[in-house]
Amino acid sequence: MSDAATTWADLTAHLRQVELLGGLEQLLDWDLQTLMPPAGGTLRSEQSALVSRLGHRALVDPRVGAWLADLEAADALDAVQRAGVRVIRRAFDRATRVSDELVARLAHTRSDAFPAWVRAKEDSDFSVLQPHLERLVALTRERAEAIDPHRHPYDVLLEDSDPGTTVEQLRDTLERVRRGLSELLEALAAARPVAPLLGRWDLASQLNANREVAAALGYDFEAGRIDFAEHPFTVGLGSGDVRITTHLYEDDLLGGLGSTIHEAGHGMYEQGLPANRPGSFVGTAPSLGLHESQSRLWENFIGRSRPFCRWVARVLARHLGGSAPDAEALYRASNRVEPGAVRVMADEVTYNLHVIVRFELELALFEGRLGVADLPEAWNALYQEYLGILPPDDARGVLQDVHWASGAFGYFPSYTLGNLYAASLGAAMVAEIPDLWEQVEAGRFDAALGWLREKVHSHGYLLEAPDLVREAVGERDSVADLLDHLWARQGTLYGLERKHSPQDAATSR
Amino acid sequence: MSDAATTWADLTAHLRQVELLGGLEQLLDWDLQTLMPPAGGTLRSEQSALVSRLGHRALVDPRVGAWLADLEAADALDAVQRAGVRVIRRAFDRATRVSDELVARLAHTRSDAFPAWVRAKEDSDFSVLQPHLERLVALTRERAEAIDPHRHPYDVLLEDSDPGTTVEQLRDTLERVRRGLSELLEALAAARPVAPLLGRWDLASQLNANREVAAALGYDFEAGRIDFAEHPFTVGLGSGDVRITTHLYEDDLLGGLGSTIHEAGHGMYEQGLPANRPGSFVGTAPSLGLHESQSRLWENFIGRSRPFCRWVARVLARHLGGSAPDAEALYRASNRVEPGAVRVMADEVTYNLHVIVRFELELALFEGRLGVADLPEAWNALYQEYLGILPPDDARGVLQDVHWASGAFGYFPSYTLGNLYAASLGAAMVAEIPDLWEQVEAGRFDAALGWLREKVHSHGYLLEAPDLVREAVGERDSVADLLDHLWARQGTLYGLERKHSPQDAATSR
Repeated sequence: MSDAATTWADLTAHLRQVELLGGLEQLLDWDLQTLMPPAGGTLRSEQSALVSRLGHRALVDPRVGAWLADLEAADALDAVQRAGVRVIRRAFDRATRVSDELVARLAHTRSDAFPAWVRAKEDSDFSVLQPHLERLVALTRERAEAIDPHRHPYDVLLEDSDPGTTVEQLRDTLERVRRGLSELLEALAAARPVAPLLGRWDLASQLNANREVAAALGYDFEAGRIDFAEHPFTVGLGSGDVRITTHLYEDDLLGGLGSTIHEAGHGMYEQGLPANRPGSFVGTAPSLGLHESQSRLWENFIGRSRPFCRWVARVLARHLGGSAPDAEALYRASNRVEPGAVRVMADEVTYNLHVIVRFELELALFEGRLGVADLPEAWNALYQEYLGILPPDDARGVLQDVHWASGAFGYFPSYTLGNLYAASLGAAMVAEIPDLWEQVEAGRFDAALGWLREKVHSHGYLLEAPDLVREAVGERDSVADLLDHLWARQGTLYGLERKHSPQDAATSR
Repeated sequence: MSDAATTWADLTAHLRQVELLGGLEQLLDWDLQTLMPPAGGTLRSEQSALVSRLGHRALVDPRVGAWLADLEAADALDAVQRAGVRVIRRAFDRATRVSDELVARLAHTRSDAFPAWVRAKEDSDFSVLQPHLERLVALTRERAEAIDPHRHPYDVLLEDSDPGTTVEQLRDTLERVRRGLSELLEALAAARPVAPLLGRWDLASQLNANREVAAALGYDFEAGRIDFAEHPFTVGLGSGDVRITTHLYEDDLLGGLGSTIHEAGHGMYEQGLPANRPGSFVGTAPSLGLHESQSRLWENFIGRSRPFCRWVARVLARHLGGSAPDAEALYRASNRVEPGAVRVMADEVTYNLHVIVRFELELALFEGRLGVADLPEAWNALYQEYLGILPPDDARGVLQDVHWASGAFGYFPSYTLGNLYAASLGAAMVAEIPDLWEQVEAGRFDAALGWLREKVHSHGYLLEAPDLVREAVGERDSVADLLDHLWARQGTLYGLERKHSPQDAATSR
């Protein structure tokens, strides 16, 4: 072996431990949220903290720095090695530049903030959380400066979840999304409202139907399983062990089904990642936004389409008998738009406005234009301006999400990045699979999944997400793709007419 | 803090990692055997190997040796510290005296032997396993010599599972058990045979009944759960997270119930261990034999008694309706004795003879009196002599258990040690709780569990198992206790008369 090949082998053998420990941490969290006996909580914190510490220790091992320096000086690395060196370097620098002391202070502050958030939300009293949030913002800014004092702190934070995306791009992109959605919402306000789907559906039968849907889409139960969790999520320990969770409701058939399809989308992505690059850090998804695109594409673009509703209505009828809704009722209820105060209950159209509110507030916080104390007022003002509603209280307003209390800043934009990527991937997919909607209506999803496997999943993290999507779809305008898709879908439902003509022919159903 | 107190704090903080990693290894194995998707196997091996390696590395850390030396030279250690130093010293020496190279060779040989055993058993062809077994015996002897060249190698092996027990004691004890059982079997051969319990019972209803039984005994579902596994087992990650498994059969109501009660016994022990000695290595059970005593006491001494059968028949009737057997049929079938070739199917009386065959053969192997090639013949000869049967083939003879192929020598005696400890604990318990059997018949088990918590569970590993049992029951002859119990139980069933009068009044039902 050449020197570089030996170094690469040493580096990846060592870092495989970091990957495995990361998987273990996920497994512990999966177990915690699905199966763990209630009394196991204290022990679980201790276990998770140890696994996290061991993973961190292996990552910041000085040998990693030396191996990286050797490889950065080497010629003739292959594509996986080049990408790996780039990604590992970033992970190593981000881990080593933040002092253990700051990591500990952040962890400690987060631990204190969580119960304060629970209490604040229960009592709808922001002042309970405020001092904790002030400390968290200050420490998070300190962390961003430690990582790179020369960059916009929010750019540094964005890199935690969506490397390759910057504040500058995001500001423009989200402003275009906001203006476009505002126009659509205005048109929708004049339309006759759609009724939600009411009824009661047996949970065991729902689960059978949901399993059948996930399997039909292409989620592989030989390499996965489905369990119940309060807040559904997916863990991918490796392509052979990818577990999805869902939450079914007796009185909300669509809520459960949407959650299963969403997580199956994440799950199929994980199952399709390349398994032959252990320890390279590039057998993974490049960003949370791209990961979210895989769940949103299945949940929204495909899962709320009329052809899909026609197919799934037949599946539901088999499992639920007379209580199953017909295809048209499903389609209408799936695409019902109603601005509300709570993000996790939002429809496909208004969801992005919830994200944009959070992005603008986070940016203002980290640019020093807004103090934590002024968050509730600013929150309510933006909800009124963008969604036309005033949250009934702070519990259903600024306190609704746990993210800030857990120190996650720069994370929310990933959700809308996911919708934007999904819109362009969906449009390109329809262009390349002309009979896609006929296949969907027949319950055949292998061509769609195959396309995603080829264009997205199989690449792992060879490219940053924006570049990977560009390679997959060509030069497309994802904002236009998203708005076209939403206009097309809402148009067929409400008979809307768009003032500005879309750039593309509508390819959404 | 005194020097010794500081050293103890450092040592236990460090070794807490070893305990947590040991728990993680168990959790990974639990997940593998209960829930893991089939395609997750390769990844799981990699995860388990890493966790095991990290635990080993933390245990053999030279600082552990230095801390131990300091504490061994210190005065004024408390009881937990004294016990901890003794147990940690043994674990440290056993881990450091065996070279990494020998550990690797053993692991490698075991990996090769397992599929060979599967094939050998499938084809009932011992020659397929023989060369692997020869290597395993040689390497295991090498390991025993590395740990202590001055002791009987089988004594060193026994210490893996039952420290405090020696070949010398075991030889005498097991010979007395064998002769006593032989006499009982002779008496039973003349009695009219009991029929097994035949029927079909709905699995979901069985599970509900089994859950109710486990909860009634005192297994805490807030700190545990029950799942299905091919070969039932229990994992205790800490007293707040103890998981039992069972295997229910549509056509074997007693098999499933016995397995649940057995594992609940293990589970209640784990749930009752002291939680306030993290990192000391003495918050655990002192031996597998003592652990087994807790499962056997519930499964056999209590679970096969007539009062228990009367109570459980009422529970079963509630869950299974008309298909539930009556109390007397349950009692007779639970105590049916029939010598057979397969250990895991054996009844309470003949079970120990299966163990004694294996002990005598293992001892002969490690004393060089028997070659691996002669095992099948020696096996069959002992089965004929002790159980009066000839195994129909090697698959149901010398190849039936996986233990030897996985390198576990010195492990089988733990099962009979468990029965012996259980017999003495049961006899002492009845003496101290005079209305025990009335309570059992009423479905009240709190006094029995409370007694075990006080006498056994709460002590953890302060004493070696033989000493702990002596403290719990006083000076008792466990062989006599076991034989008395079996004579009493079989006597009530078959109206047997014992030639030699028992030393104690019969306290078993």
